Amino acid sequence: MPDLLLLPHHDGSPAYVDNEAPRLGDTVTVRMRSHTDDPIDDVWLRTTYDAEPVYLATRRSADGPTAWWEADLLVHNPVTHYRFLIVRADGQEWLGGNGLADIDLPDAADFKLTSYAPAPDWSRDGVIYQIFPDRYARSAAADERPTPPWALAAQWTDTVVFEGSDPRTPAQFFGGDLDGITEHLDHVERVGADIVYTTPVFPGESNHRYNATTFDEVDPLLGGDAAYQRLSQAVHARGWRILGDLTTNHTGDTHEWFRTAQADPESVTRTFYYFNHDGSYANWMGHGTLPKVNHGDPDLRSAMVEGPDSIVGRWLRPPYDVDGWRIDVANMTGRLGALDVAHEVARAVRRTAESLREDPLVIGEHNHDASGDVDGDGWHGTMNYSGFSWPVWSWLRSEDTTARAFGRPVQVPRRGGPAVVETFRAWQGALGWQATTSSWNILGSHDSARIRTMVGSAEVHRVAAGLQFTMPGVPMLFAGDELGLEGVIGEDSRRPMPWSSEDDWDTATLDTYAALARVRRSRAALRRGGQRWAYVDDDTIAFVREHYDGSVLVVARRAAGPCFELPLILGEHLLGTERGAPVTNGPGVISASDGPRLDIWSLG
Amino acid sequence: MPDLLLLPHHDGSPAYVDNEAPRLGDTVTVRMRSHTDDPIDDVWLRTTYDAEPVYLATRRSADGPTAWWEADLLVHNPVTHYRFLIVRADGQEWLGGNGLADIDLPDAADFKLTSYAPAPDWSRDGVIYQIFPDRYARSAAADERPTPPWALAAQWTDTVVFEGSDPRTPAQFFGGDLDGITEHLDHVERVGADIVYTTPVFPGESNHRYNATTFDEVDPLLGGDAAYQRLSQAVHARGWRILGDLTTNHTGDTHEWFRTAQADPESVTRTFYYFNHDGSYANWMGHGTLPKVNHGDPDLRSAMVEGPDSIVGRWLRPPYDVDGWRIDVANMTGRLGALDVAHEVARAVRRTAESLREDPLVIGEHNHDASGDVDGDGWHGTMNYSGFSWPVWSWLRSEDTTARAFGRPVQVPRRGGPAVVETFRAWQGALGWQATTSSWNILGSHDSARIRTMVGSAEVHRVAAGLQFTMPGVPMLFAGDELGLEGVIGEDSRRPMPWSSEDDWDTATLDTYAALARVRRSRAALRRGGQRWAYVDDDTIAFVREHYDGSVLVVARRAAGPCFELPLILGEHLLGTERGAPVTNGPGVISASDGPRLDIWSLG
Repeated sequence: MPDLLLLPHHDGSPAYVDNEAPRLGDTVTVRMRSHTDDPIDDVWLRTTYDAEPVYLATRRSADGPTAWWEADLLVHNPVTHYRFLIVRADGQEWLGGNGLADIDLPDAADFKLTSYAPAPDWSRDGVIYQIFPDRYARSAAADERPTPPWALAAQWTDTVVFEGSDPRTPAQFFGGDLDGITEHLDHVERVGADIVYTTPVFPGESNHRYNATTFDEVDPLLGGDAAYQRLSQAVHARGWRILGDLTTNHTGDTHEWFRTAQADPESVTRTFYYFNHDGSYANWMGHGTLPKVNHGDPDLRSAMVEGPDSIVGRWLRPPYDVDGWRIDVANMTGRLGALDVAHEVARAVRRTAESLREDPLVIGEHNHDASGDVDGDGWHGTMNYSGFSWPVWSWLRSEDTTARAFGRPVQVPRRGGPAVVETFRAWQGALGWQATTSSWNILGSHDSARIRTMVGSAEVHRVAAGLQFTMPGVPMLFAGDELGLEGVIGEDSRRPMPWSSEDDWDTATLDTYAALARVRRSRAALRRGGQRWAYVDDDTIAFVREHYDGSVLVVARRAAGPCFELPLILGEHLLGTERGAPVTNGPGVISASDGPRLDIWSLG
Repeated sequence: MPDLLLLPHHDGSPAYVDNEAPRLGDTVTVRMRSHTDDPIDDVWLRTTYDAEPVYLATRRSADGPTAWWEADLLVHNPVTHYRFLIVRADGQEWLGGNGLADIDLPDAADFKLTSYAPAPDWSRDGVIYQIFPDRYARSAAADERPTPPWALAAQWTDTVVFEGSDPRTPAQFFGGDLDGITEHLDHVERVGADIVYTTPVFPGESNHRYNATTFDEVDPLLGGDAAYQRLSQAVHARGWRILGDLTTNHTGDTHEWFRTAQADPESVTRTFYYFNHDGSYANWMGHGTLPKVNHGDPDLRSAMVEGPDSIVGRWLRPPYDVDGWRIDVANMTGRLGALDVAHEVARAVRRTAESLREDPLVIGEHNHDASGDVDGDGWHGTMNYSGFSWPVWSWLRSEDTTARAFGRPVQVPRRGGPAVVETFRAWQGALGWQATTSSWNILGSHDSARIRTMVGSAEVHRVAAGLQFTMPGVPMLFAGDELGLEGVIGEDSRRPMPWSSEDDWDTATLDTYAALARVRRSRAALRRGGQRWAYVDDDTIAFVREHYDGSVLVVARRAAGPCFELPLILGEHLLGTERGAPVTNGPGVISASDGPRLDIWSLG
């Protein structure tokens, strides 16, 4: 295989782009690196101003074995595309966001320089801990609350019913509450997270609460507004952040808006929904309990997303004081057949948030291809299932896993390192650097199988966690992953946290998460650095995260693998997901080593 | 190499999609083919409704060695995306618009089913002949017209001055006129074309007339409105069509709108342009003679593109009676920095056209990536430089050509067949089947080098012409190509037609164009058929165009090549660009043969 580190490279990180957050009309210096042994005659920077290709000459300089090709790029359009044309005597090659290509491809994977602000620093530097309230922890007060009529009371140690067709699945009620979360913030700290993200806390006649009956208050079953305020204040008192979860695509069919709309066709909220003449209505994926709201309607838009008194706005203010929103089903929000106001809704959410807080975050859920919906003036990023979770699952899944794929009707395919890295690159190219690094690296969520079940062992799980904390993007872990909880699909993954059986915790994995969070916090390279692929074979994926403040090498192995040599000088061994460090037989030689394991070194 | 014809396949042609022009809400049956020897366990059709992936099960049937996998696809969105997931025991593979992929890629190259009407039949079935009026033919009346002050009178046999910095380049005036064209329609017929497309006929102080001084009349130097009417009527009398060419992006700085605007900041047309405080103004690529118009201004929009009395509208009506428009610089029209109303303008042009004529055509010039700008309710297609011209140039250019690249600062790279076919596929995927087949296959234009100069020989030129008439898309030839005219860049390619030196005509090439036009007209497969790649090596590109009314095989060789066998039964040899037919040593065996040449067979 070619020595990957000798290939031409560019990404959106500070070593390659001198202004990560330019404004429209700014000129940004962008540069490509190559190896001086690579017989490159010339490099052109191609941009597309107003959709017309323009070629800018580059200036070459050399820095030891590295040649730099630099040009000044005017940020002429709000999102300005570019790529490099590399000219050698024997041909021409393009360098774009998905890597090198020796044919003339369309622009979908161009590098992108956006004039819209990136996600706030706290979110890009943070670690997110996702909590599903019904299953996280019960405070003493929970025992006092009556079980509501729709619910089936469960004991904390009961088995979760999870098959979708079982009516008990959404009704099984374990009674976790917000004070329960507040009481366990030390555990969150132990994991190393500093952003608490809870799935919805609005009242809703289900344990998941994605079918809100109102957006005006916190579910009394969770402790109500006062409990939320206590949680929010406790989170902020630690210098942390808290995120809400809002269904902008739909409400519950028990929602006050919907009940009024259904009862009275003349009511104000009738146009909030898509009613047909026969009284049927648009809903989420055939679920009549989740009527879809109509963002084509200005009244709905102002009730839900526009302005300080909208739902989006009110929760960003005290007493709730959330620092941002994770937007549920953002991909479908504002889209139905011929109507597509998805970008307007995303822009409105962001505009509302920015009018109320200095540095809010808005992340859109998209379990698929969000490339058309990010990097603009809407969502800062997405839950990056496609660009992170699925390729990681693909690489690390066990042969005989019982975990099921999410969103596809057949099992996740098992693929080797080269295919997986090509997938990472394709999605980085599609999303662009800013959106990729603002998006969430997730190994699973309340909607999917647990990573532990997918990969089948603690060791491979820790390799996955290592990638989550070292690949470009923001780690978001679903509470319980750190203890080695299992689950074959999302509903099964919502098992209650085993507070009372600490002996069963996988503390090695918990400690690994904590160590990963520490090393990520201590190394700018892991939070903000560029990414160059260093070595890839079926069982090994190695890459450098590069930053002026010091670069690091990450070597992930899903199985034992051979020795390989890199043109690098290894420094300190910063972390290994298994005991000890692999022997290094020279300045840049990674020895053959056992696997699965993931290691991080500083680079000299 | 794998036997390409045994691979799974789908495209947007009638064999694979049972309704080429569905409406929103229709259900269309789409099907994928595979070979029964291919151990496929299952195939899923994945679509994205409202940006959410949905998997539809397929029904399998077999027809001899062909397995068909079929599903009913609801056209839920105006442009509905889909792709196939192929499941085998040893892995999963996707089939998308750019071919097979064994990794999970973003959706940019998904198949697309659009609910907007395709280009009219006459345009998809036709052959377009592009005429640059100043250089095509002079009628006797031309001798009577005085040379205007801006112009430098040239004799028809003078050498064209073509370097861009030479002030004579736009001023050299050969005096071709519209009656000259009308007098030569028999020649157009001889070539086999049936759609006459002239570059602009508005008055403009240049020989190219892309800098209009008014859109209200035909240039008197061309014979004025009456001459245009004669041409239009003569074209229509043959059952042919005629297309205009409009600069929606800019006018000349001598345009009546601009003169008024510049003279009087309070004038109605001031807002038609982008004036800065210092009196400077936005223009096309730094050319002050081409002030850019502002489609953000409703008055400009209604003057130029909206409604029957707009410029777009008036020319679609008698006396001009054009059948459609080629829109100049469509890619930049309506785009400037943060403003992007390009799609609104395209929609307005199409809406205006459709309100006035039964079956108008609107084609947007885009010398780059038009994939975001076609397949909707705007342009029917584009001048397909990126998806056709550049890969063909890349494959066929001579080693030592003096022809220059168009729009890139270095020479066109020379590439082998596999790279070129991969490029064709990538652009078909990006544009989609409907837009690809509605777009123009061009080997060059008044803006580029001539194909003859690029490829360096008549034989290779005829291979290029063969691809132009057999690849999906509509052939558009720049007048003079059929005679073997030369040119190293666009301005040089505008050499006057050598009417008086018929002995110098390359009649073999002229006859080849005519033969290609005949075979294209006689075979639905070449106009409407699908495309499956059959055999590719560096010097050979072979493909099948498939249609219920009879399929054909096309074998293009840029040089002599080896024998190969295909799982096909060859029928009649329909056309060879060189004398005789290659020997076929069996039902599907293409013998080793000399090259360059291109051959077409019917298939049994």
